[in-house]
Amino acid sequence: MQDRLTRQLAFLTEIDALKSVTRQSRIVDRSRRENSAEHSWHLAMFALILADDGVDVGRVIMMLLIHDIVEIDAGDAPIHGVHDTVALELAERQAAERLFGLLPPDQAARLLSVWQEFEAAESAEARFAKALDRLQPLLLNTLTDGGTWTENAVSEQQVYERYGPTISGGSPTLWAHARALVERQFANRPS
Amino acid sequence: MQDRLTRQLAFLTEIDALKSVTRQSRIVDRSRRENSAEHSWHLAMFALILADDGVDVGRVIMMLLIHDIVEIDAGDAPIHGVHDTVALELAERQAAERLFGLLPPDQAARLLSVWQEFEAAESAEARFAKALDRLQPLLLNTLTDGGTWTENAVSEQQVYERYGPTISGGSPTLWAHARALVERQFANRPS
Repeated sequence: MQDRLTRQLAFLTEIDALKSVTRQSRIVDRSRRENSAEHSWHLAMFALILADDGVDVGRVIMMLLIHDIVEIDAGDAPIHGVHDTVALELAERQAAERLFGLLPPDQAARLLSVWQEFEAAESAEARFAKALDRLQPLLLNTLTDGGTWTENAVSEQQVYERYGPTISGGSPTLWAHARALVERQFANRPS
Repeated sequence: MQDRLTRQLAFLTEIDALKSVTRQSRIVDRSRRENSAEHSWHLAMFALILADDGVDVGRVIMMLLIHDIVEIDAGDAPIHGVHDTVALELAERQAAERLFGLLPPDQAARLLSVWQEFEAAESAEARFAKALDRLQPLLLNTLTDGGTWTENAVSEQQVYERYGPTISGGSPTLWAHARALVERQFANRPS
């Protein structure tokens, strides 16, 4: 029992490092970039508020709380960057095994399984979680003068291509609303 | 429906400000103080990993995700500070009404009710959530050379008095473990 608790606290100590993984998005007041721990909290709140009866909201929240923990070892892969997908998937898989492996075996297996479900993006919960993980930075960009779109010279068409399938795959209603926000953002941009 | 979603996104935008509320505790690498959004994520992970069958873990996580949102208006009240409890409770109550009141009425009422349940610390879920909210900064202090105890010249006895009742009230097992960590921390301190 003591050994179980010691392992659990070792994991909870280790994941403190997610507070030091910096993302590309700026927080709404634009003072700094967001970190992956507070991003995960924000996403869990998105799930709590936006989930409808079609999904198990508790499972969506669990997915979103843990979905970025692999970044402690593998780093954040910005959506508008170019990545070696095979190498990144291997690094994230190894990170998941090391980090979740700090836990007692039953919990390690459970968290690894939930993380894999999120990555596979097949279940209704995983598709909704993925949609929120795209919606939140989209919303931040519309609130920070285009944010990472402006910084990376991303076109309106590229925004639709990079965010649309994932958000509409989880929730067509959210995508309809988000698309309108994007249209407004690009319409207001100085040409 | 559109109005509902507009209100939900207004709330999710407003609570981004929790990322700018600074707490006293330092993160494990000691580089800076923790903010209340990432603290809330960390606590939700504590609940996910440490909850046993005696509590509804989904409800505990929901409580911990929202428990500090009032700080956006009312600020963080450090445990080792001196506070006007009556004024603080009023400010937090007003903050809860304004912030949760941004949501559609049914969700506003639900979140207000969950936050009040947390504050009342009577249900098993609220007592466990409160215990984790004390355990996490205790753990951070033992990992950062005494952290806020050292900064505020808090004695070992004061630690027992300020953390013990809340943690043991939620989980005697966690308190037994935490108390041993505190003993070790003060035993190692240069006299």
